[in-house]
Amino acid sequence: MICVRHPGQDGGAAALEDVAGATDLREGPDGVRAILDLVRRSGPISPREVAARLGLPLPVVAAVRRECEKRGLLTRDRGMMLSEEGLALVRDVLGMTAGQATECPTCGGYGIVIGKPLRPTLEALAEIERAMPTVDTTLDQSHSLPESTLRRALYLHHRGALDGRRVIFLGDDDLLSVACGLIGESEGGPRARELAALDCDPRLVDYLRATAEAHGFGLDARVHDLRHPLPEDLRGRFDAFVTDPPYTAAGLELFVSRGLSALQPGSGRHGFLAFAHKPPEEMVAAQALLARMGLQMREVLPGFNAYEGGGVTQTSQMIHLVATAQARATITGDFEGALYTKEVDPWLRAYRCQSCRCELLVGPGREFVTIEVLKAAGCPECGGTRFRRGRQVRAPEAEKPQT
Amino acid sequence: MICVRHPGQDGGAAALEDVAGATDLREGPDGVRAILDLVRRSGPISPREVAARLGLPLPVVAAVRRECEKRGLLTRDRGMMLSEEGLALVRDVLGMTAGQATECPTCGGYGIVIGKPLRPTLEALAEIERAMPTVDTTLDQSHSLPESTLRRALYLHHRGALDGRRVIFLGDDDLLSVACGLIGESEGGPRARELAALDCDPRLVDYLRATAEAHGFGLDARVHDLRHPLPEDLRGRFDAFVTDPPYTAAGLELFVSRGLSALQPGSGRHGFLAFAHKPPEEMVAAQALLARMGLQMREVLPGFNAYEGGGVTQTSQMIHLVATAQARATITGDFEGALYTKEVDPWLRAYRCQSCRCELLVGPGREFVTIEVLKAAGCPECGGTRFRRGRQVRAPEAEKPQT
Repeated sequence: MICVRHPGQDGGAAALEDVAGATDLREGPDGVRAILDLVRRSGPISPREVAARLGLPLPVVAAVRRECEKRGLLTRDRGMMLSEEGLALVRDVLGMTAGQATECPTCGGYGIVIGKPLRPTLEALAEIERAMPTVDTTLDQSHSLPESTLRRALYLHHRGALDGRRVIFLGDDDLLSVACGLIGESEGGPRARELAALDCDPRLVDYLRATAEAHGFGLDARVHDLRHPLPEDLRGRFDAFVTDPPYTAAGLELFVSRGLSALQPGSGRHGFLAFAHKPPEEMVAAQALLARMGLQMREVLPGFNAYEGGGVTQTSQMIHLVATAQARATITGDFEGALYTKEVDPWLRAYRCQSCRCELLVGPGREFVTIEVLKAAGCPECGGTRFRRGRQVRAPEAEKPQT
Repeated sequence: MICVRHPGQDGGAAALEDVAGATDLREGPDGVRAILDLVRRSGPISPREVAARLGLPLPVVAAVRRECEKRGLLTRDRGMMLSEEGLALVRDVLGMTAGQATECPTCGGYGIVIGKPLRPTLEALAEIERAMPTVDTTLDQSHSLPESTLRRALYLHHRGALDGRRVIFLGDDDLLSVACGLIGESEGGPRARELAALDCDPRLVDYLRATAEAHGFGLDARVHDLRHPLPEDLRGRFDAFVTDPPYTAAGLELFVSRGLSALQPGSGRHGFLAFAHKPPEEMVAAQALLARMGLQMREVLPGFNAYEGGGVTQTSQMIHLVATAQARATITGDFEGALYTKEVDPWLRAYRCQSCRCELLVGPGREFVTIEVLKAAGCPECGGTRFRRGRQVRAPEAEKPQT
């Protein structure tokens, strides 16, 4: 049964509105439409793949899937698939029929190719990423895929911000500073005048330093918490800053402010900002903030950056910022508010010990801040180290009796 | 002689500052740097090509060339070329040495390919553009290149705004509505549910109608001056609007306002905005305006659209807008201010008759509004129809005695 009131008249709008409403999807009916069209072209397809391709959070895709299944539009067959009714809606009512492939097959639509001279660089980078210290999920970290990291470094170069430039990385768990350093060592590759990287994770900074030394390129890597202003000697002298800030409004404002304080004054300096795909309302607020800081968004590329975290590939957008002469940091002193996603919207996650079956809550403000910490410490009841991931719990509800 | 105070110390910054200052370049020293780097990689290269590749106005590139020649950095040799001194500055002082080609050779960095099934469509479109009524330069018109027009239509499709969609074109001297209609007729091509196009030029509207009829696709083309609100029956019912407004702040606000009034209410509807490459300060103002209107810039692609006008290839940026539920037009009634570049900043151009040598001023407020009008009328002195293009004159200065 399809929930379409007058399929011929409203073009299937009611069905899409209905699902969007039931899932509280902030992308609206167009978000549902995009999911159904992707399933039409690529089904059977996993919800993870859909989430990655469309830049939507996985729980949102899962919710849309559930609601579409309830309405008989989707079936399960090694992934998401259109039912006969679903296909009728998509093809005949929504009118989506195109079958031409016009995305560039050589570069996958990125516009950048990693050619033969850079193959050894890519391999070296992949090896360096594999040997990297464990990701700390309390800091919104996840691993950037090596191809994606290298593509980002080439993107900096294409935009005139690498060859002969002074570049600073504010937070660098993606090892982008390493990718830039390695490229400079390759035949005919763009070579930075100076690379600097700041991160609050001392293990990561040690690793950046050791890697630069081992591969023979210069990198000024330092432990620094960006809640505090930049060290004096790093202010006002870079051509470009690069950052992948915590995906909150405060994180964006703080990291970009620090980036601006690192740039040489004057018009035309560069900023490269990786940022999550947020719903339109949040992005409008973020873009208004960037304009207020005197930054032009010269280029915005959705889905440009690809990460691997918890077995899921996620993407984020790349934003190329250009400073006007009026650009200025809106945060200049110390910052004391909440910054990371898990502080701003603290979820806890229940894990069940596979040995003694006890349940443990993991997350901010808990003994075990992440599952990695819990695994390293072992179960406090029995010492077991295997845990099954359970439900998510909002922090204020954590103390309520479980039903 | 190079004007570098301490080449080793300041990394050539003084030379770049110097040229940027002498030419009043709003892109600053980085703009000069980008020009020199392009000349390094692609010289000899014409100023027109440089302007097109970097999205800079031709007079700006010409001024930078002049200042660089004065300082011995550039020579003339079938175009712009680095002198020995220039090469030393660029390579040794500015540190630009990269020689790898990493831009995708298949799609030229656009991410979209026009494959075999669309070749006949491209040919048909090129033929239609050739037979189009003369461009009226008082309306900021210039011809979009057929490949570029088709690529734009495919871009709409890639972003989910063509197949099965209602799309309205606000101003369409680029014939993008025709490209969308033709694609829908191709094998497996995305087919719009409804296409509508408004333009203030009756000849163009006639041509759009005749073309749609000849090729058998539906297109509701109407004469309408966007200074007035949209006709009632076109309001609040489209999935996407497409516009290439006059390149002024007022033009942007007015055309996007009309676009918003055409969209169905609710979150997630699309806008596609072609806009000139303006200096960073103006773009920040434009982007703040779009945020204020409740529009997310989901994607910004500099250089995406290519035009031909007066023998020069120019490019503009493509901005993919997504409406939030709060999106609203900031201009809803009639608009009475200045709109087009030539009204806002009225330049006149001197032309010299090749028969009787008399000089004539062409531009807004003159007997001959454009060179096309002058050619059609003939020289008022001798009736000649061949004219040599001369200097540009600001309107208030036009009456001053010539020196």
